[in-house]
Amino acid sequence: MRILNRERLQYVVDNHLQKDIFRGNFGLEKENNRVDLKGKLALTPHPKAFGSKKENPYIKTDFSESQIELITPVFESIEETYHFMETLHDIVSLELNDEYMWPSSNPPVLPDEDEIPIASMDDPSENQYRRKLAEKYGRKRQLISGIHFNFSFQEEFLQKLYGTLQVKQSFRNFKDDVYLKVARNVMKYRWLLIYLTGASPVFDKSYIERCVQLSDHFDEESHFFPNMNSLRNSVCGYRNDKLLHVSMDSVEDYIRDLQKLVSSNELLSVREYYSPVRIKPAIGCDVVHELIHHGIAYLELRMIDLNPLYKIGVSKESLHFVHLFLVTLLLIEDQPFGEEEHKIAALNHDSLIMNGIEGRLYGEESHFENLREKALYFIDEMEEMLNFLMSNEQSFIELLENSRRIVKDAQLSYAEIVKSEIQQSTYLSYHLEKARRYREESKATGYQFTGYEDLELSTQLLLKAAVKRGVKFEILDRQDNFILLQQGDHKEYIKQATKTSLDSYSTILIMENKIVTKKVLERNGIRVPKGRVYHDLDIALADYPLHRGKPIVIKPKSTNFGLGITIFAGDYTLEDYHKAFEMAFEHDQTILLEQFVTGKEYRFLVMGDEVVGVLHRVPANVVGDGIRTIEQLVIDKNKDPLRGIGYKTPLERIQLGDVEKMFLKNQSRTIADVPMAGEIVYLRENSNISTGGDSIDFTDEIPESYKQIAIQSAKAAEATFCGVDMMIDDISEEASNRNYCIIEINFNPAIHIHCYPYQGINRKADDKILDLLFQEK
Amino acid sequence: MRILNRERLQYVVDNHLQKDIFRGNFGLEKENNRVDLKGKLALTPHPKAFGSKKENPYIKTDFSESQIELITPVFESIEETYHFMETLHDIVSLELNDEYMWPSSNPPVLPDEDEIPIASMDDPSENQYRRKLAEKYGRKRQLISGIHFNFSFQEEFLQKLYGTLQVKQSFRNFKDDVYLKVARNVMKYRWLLIYLTGASPVFDKSYIERCVQLSDHFDEESHFFPNMNSLRNSVCGYRNDKLLHVSMDSVEDYIRDLQKLVSSNELLSVREYYSPVRIKPAIGCDVVHELIHHGIAYLELRMIDLNPLYKIGVSKESLHFVHLFLVTLLLIEDQPFGEEEHKIAALNHDSLIMNGIEGRLYGEESHFENLREKALYFIDEMEEMLNFLMSNEQSFIELLENSRRIVKDAQLSYAEIVKSEIQQSTYLSYHLEKARRYREESKATGYQFTGYEDLELSTQLLLKAAVKRGVKFEILDRQDNFILLQQGDHKEYIKQATKTSLDSYSTILIMENKIVTKKVLERNGIRVPKGRVYHDLDIALADYPLHRGKPIVIKPKSTNFGLGITIFAGDYTLEDYHKAFEMAFEHDQTILLEQFVTGKEYRFLVMGDEVVGVLHRVPANVVGDGIRTIEQLVIDKNKDPLRGIGYKTPLERIQLGDVEKMFLKNQSRTIADVPMAGEIVYLRENSNISTGGDSIDFTDEIPESYKQIAIQSAKAAEATFCGVDMMIDDISEEASNRNYCIIEINFNPAIHIHCYPYQGINRKADDKILDLLFQEK
Repeated sequence: MRILNRERLQYVVDNHLQKDIFRGNFGLEKENNRVDLKGKLALTPHPKAFGSKKENPYIKTDFSESQIELITPVFESIEETYHFMETLHDIVSLELNDEYMWPSSNPPVLPDEDEIPIASMDDPSENQYRRKLAEKYGRKRQLISGIHFNFSFQEEFLQKLYGTLQVKQSFRNFKDDVYLKVARNVMKYRWLLIYLTGASPVFDKSYIERCVQLSDHFDEESHFFPNMNSLRNSVCGYRNDKLLHVSMDSVEDYIRDLQKLVSSNELLSVREYYSPVRIKPAIGCDVVHELIHHGIAYLELRMIDLNPLYKIGVSKESLHFVHLFLVTLLLIEDQPFGEEEHKIAALNHDSLIMNGIEGRLYGEESHFENLREKALYFIDEMEEMLNFLMSNEQSFIELLENSRRIVKDAQLSYAEIVKSEIQQSTYLSYHLEKARRYREESKATGYQFTGYEDLELSTQLLLKAAVKRGVKFEILDRQDNFILLQQGDHKEYIKQATKTSLDSYSTILIMENKIVTKKVLERNGIRVPKGRVYHDLDIALADYPLHRGKPIVIKPKSTNFGLGITIFAGDYTLEDYHKAFEMAFEHDQTILLEQFVTGKEYRFLVMGDEVVGVLHRVPANVVGDGIRTIEQLVIDKNKDPLRGIGYKTPLERIQLGDVEKMFLKNQSRTIADVPMAGEIVYLRENSNISTGGDSIDFTDEIPESYKQIAIQSAKAAEATFCGVDMMIDDISEEASNRNYCIIEINFNPAIHIHCYPYQGINRKADDKILDLLFQEK
Repeated sequence: MRILNRERLQYVVDNHLQKDIFRGNFGLEKENNRVDLKGKLALTPHPKAFGSKKENPYIKTDFSESQIELITPVFESIEETYHFMETLHDIVSLELNDEYMWPSSNPPVLPDEDEIPIASMDDPSENQYRRKLAEKYGRKRQLISGIHFNFSFQEEFLQKLYGTLQVKQSFRNFKDDVYLKVARNVMKYRWLLIYLTGASPVFDKSYIERCVQLSDHFDEESHFFPNMNSLRNSVCGYRNDKLLHVSMDSVEDYIRDLQKLVSSNELLSVREYYSPVRIKPAIGCDVVHELIHHGIAYLELRMIDLNPLYKIGVSKESLHFVHLFLVTLLLIEDQPFGEEEHKIAALNHDSLIMNGIEGRLYGEESHFENLREKALYFIDEMEEMLNFLMSNEQSFIELLENSRRIVKDAQLSYAEIVKSEIQQSTYLSYHLEKARRYREESKATGYQFTGYEDLELSTQLLLKAAVKRGVKFEILDRQDNFILLQQGDHKEYIKQATKTSLDSYSTILIMENKIVTKKVLERNGIRVPKGRVYHDLDIALADYPLHRGKPIVIKPKSTNFGLGITIFAGDYTLEDYHKAFEMAFEHDQTILLEQFVTGKEYRFLVMGDEVVGVLHRVPANVVGDGIRTIEQLVIDKNKDPLRGIGYKTPLERIQLGDVEKMFLKNQSRTIADVPMAGEIVYLRENSNISTGGDSIDFTDEIPESYKQIAIQSAKAAEATFCGVDMMIDDISEEASNRNYCIIEINFNPAIHIHCYPYQGINRKADDKILDLLFQEK
């Protein structure tokens, strides 16, 4: 007897729905316990940086104060969902001081029950509920963590399906039926998912005493049950004490049964029904009311373990498999699923947990010898579905092939891999090592928002900072780095991280216009290079005698990329001067001639009333050690994960091209030379970050007097966010009315250079933007 | 004996100062009496539109409430100063309802003394001073109006001169001496300026009885004295009763003599010293204190009549002559100017007034037969100076030549021309006719700010509105239309009239991005064309079946000039569709496909919480009269002064080029056809103003419901100033959720089209901008 309904498959093909059926909306939730550097449960409070536990939609706590819960928004692809979870993980990981995120579903080294902190919420009834749960299940059990996978079909697909089927029920009822059917089938076949995703085979001796006593152990600490791949899905895991029957025939039946369980005090609340799959309404506040009035919006699968083999606790393959599995469950034959079937499903679940894939298969399908045979058959049916729907892409085929191999050989399963690796270490040190490594990985790519790498770094950082404190975001236009941030009713439209509502348009226009900028600064008593404006070549030439012998810069009014600019630091002839103007006039009708200002250039990042960071750039260079060649020094310096190619990282790799080689040659060197220890060798004249320059944070070294000038400059232009470029002769002197000069104010200052400088600390400019945008008024 | 000091001339040449000596700063002040349409002094209050009499630096009142005083800022050229005065004149002229600006120094038809309203000021001591003056001189006399010409040498020139001369006094004392010397010479030779600029020979019978009785008359009304070219500079004019001697040897002597006159009650205040020339400090509040402590900043010449032959009351030639005259006075021999010389100068003044240019020349220069001979000699000296300084430009030479002719033949003087023209009319109707004509001239160019025609019309209008209410302005960058407006301490930086501090940068960015604009509007429940975004040609092509048969527009995301846009209103093939996308992708990487919206397009100008104007554009057209050909109709329609070429006017002239002729041909017409009376003939498909289209004001016709939608759209983007482009099916219906569509919001809406539409009234958008920028907070 085949489970797939071929008529139904044909129907999908006939109605051109074979692409749409694979479309859906995906969300992930996961919990991680915080641990100290020794792997003991952290007893510290939930970090303040994550804002309100209740209002931050991304980062919350679960039962325990030490148990962080990460929640992605809903995306239309697994890829995006996965990336977002990775970023959530990175954000939390980087914010934790001297703590790790414990990478297993099974708890870390635990203190006594009553030392485990229950999450403290603002709402007293919430606190009471958590205390009652803690009493009922025990706090240790509650620390069992996992992944929840939220899925819905694309609404358009369901509507098309409804439209073509011409059934006599309402769309809402039709949709409820679709999800109820899939949910029933999830209950029935959940053992297969548990087998393929289970990854919590071993636990620490500090876990619940009775479970520890009953178990085997590899060493003094690391306990396990033979064949059990998921402690979490076992009786020692976090599940309801008894098998509770809740009908999944209709929303009404489901609610009725749940409410019966609550009124008979089996459950403290409907929330306590820890079913492997839940039917969920679109809005979560009052589940019962919402389900009855607006129906099912998505399914929540709750049986997936945290997988320590992956940084974010689950593999992308697992998620794709679950997705295919759910689509298959929609397309198989309808079968009754009453109390009896419910019990059989639970038997198969426990059969898998206790005996693994070779465990007995319960239920009517007695012609299969064990779970493995049924599993292989199910995977074949999945493959047939793909073929039928012409969705047999290589990645799907490989996914099924891999699952088949794991079903055939349990040693290939995640749980067995984890178990055998722990066997060569201990439960504690194995997971601690993973936690440490994942934290390093988070650090190495901390400057980016995985899944949004096409955005500018400054925008990626701002989005991460928003997520960290629970400010919701939406990308309005990716190409433009145009985003919407929202907290409660407060909306902020932002482009390129620093173009916000806090700067007025006239402020931007002032900064955009060099002539106006200078006038505004000058009138506010701030030093700017003296200069003249020319619209006419002849007039400029007639003024040559005025400038002759003085160091000057000739530049077009509006170019910002160094085009058409000539610097005369020493002597220059009328002919040189003439050529410089001709070149400048090619780029603009208005040319500025300014005194050439000496000193070093510093970028002051001004935000509101403060200087958030000060940066100085140094040309590409290496520091000798008396051993390595210049070439080797460059190669090694380029290994810094902050250095990349094409502006995707805060720093760029140093090149060894013609320019660099020529620059060395002018110093009578080659890349094969070995510089002395401590000797600095420059490879470029220019200090741009884009040609391998270093960014050096000077925020703490620059005297306050210069910072005040930068702030005054911003205030003169009425700017909230700006980058003030200041030339300073000698920062060991305080600022006077002689020793500095403002050469530009920039209205879209990059923030990533201040967060991830080559030398110096993260100045958290991203957080500062949000502080200003969302400050209480 | 020659008056020019040749050594001094040589000195100027040797030190390369021959260009600098002609540089200077120029300012003009003038008074005009307001009159009703019959030429009677207006008894209405000073118009509110001009703001505070005290604080408006450009438009004030003088002695009488009916006497408007116009004051230009200081400019570096006569040209600019003249233009500004013209604009001030236009502004006031256009703001007066049913009143004219009386174009003569001599008063219009006057009521009885005590019916003439004294200017009412906020300051009681000011009011008291004016009342006392009125008692002393009589109110009629006080209505005598004129021009004041303010002049200073370029500061840099004086500094260079001081530097090269190496005199042993301070720069300040040197500068005082320069101006005192020129001032003394002005006193001495003022009769020549009075001769050349006098233009008030005739006066009305309603003037001071004694003057009327002593005079001759052309008719019942128009009185004159033989040979007298300037009543204003006569005893019947507004001058001190007695000849008062005030030394001009030094600032201290000047102040001492003035204060002596005040303490002996000869004068009510130092301000009452009505000298033909005054020495003035840089800041005007406390003249005595400022002169003593900071010295002389400029000279004020006060003897120039309002010249009814010119709209603004003075010819540019007169001003250039005065300037050359002042430069000459610096270069002539130093001679003592004590009480005796003072008296002689007064005698020559009165000699000119009573006997004209043939009058006797008093003083030591007895070898000249009369004023005329001396005048010719003086002009020769001026010419020699020009030759010497190699500044003998044609315009200067002509200026002197013309003056020479007038000296030789008094009939050519302004006064004689005015007199002879009045003789053919009456004093009243002659000046009334002039006033009427000048007002028409002001109207015809009301949309422009003379001297600033290179700025965009919107900026010109805003500047005029600012001047009108006394908001000071500065052009920060002409090319960019970047201005600074200032009222007290309140500064506003503005670019292109509507780019201001009242819009945040994020608001601008929302409007700049069509995708984001649509999202923002849609979420606020505002109708926008449905559409999709494409980044990829293949995906766009795959969607062809979705759009086939529906009217659509395909357009690049960021172009604003119609480039790359294709409209498919009817059927289109895949090939057409393909080509349209290819073309669009040439302009942007992001292409929008939108439903093609029907209806007529209206531009709603939203400012703050209101719709200031609604405009609909109609393609270039003429309306037949059954007589004229299309060509003639176009020629006649183009005579409208609002129509010009090259965006310098609110409307563009209709062309009769290939496009128009082809368009007519398609209607089986030629430009030689004579359309029927009332028949509308279109000459273009497109309705752009730039191709001769008409702008039709619909502000009063559009139902309020559409205006509310426009305001909501602006609010959704948080915009203060924007242009909302709305498609409306039928404006006779109220707005519903079906019959309109917002196609764009523009962040830099032109305002001139709402101020000077082809059909409709001035919606004063310029005033509204200022209301919002400078509203009390």
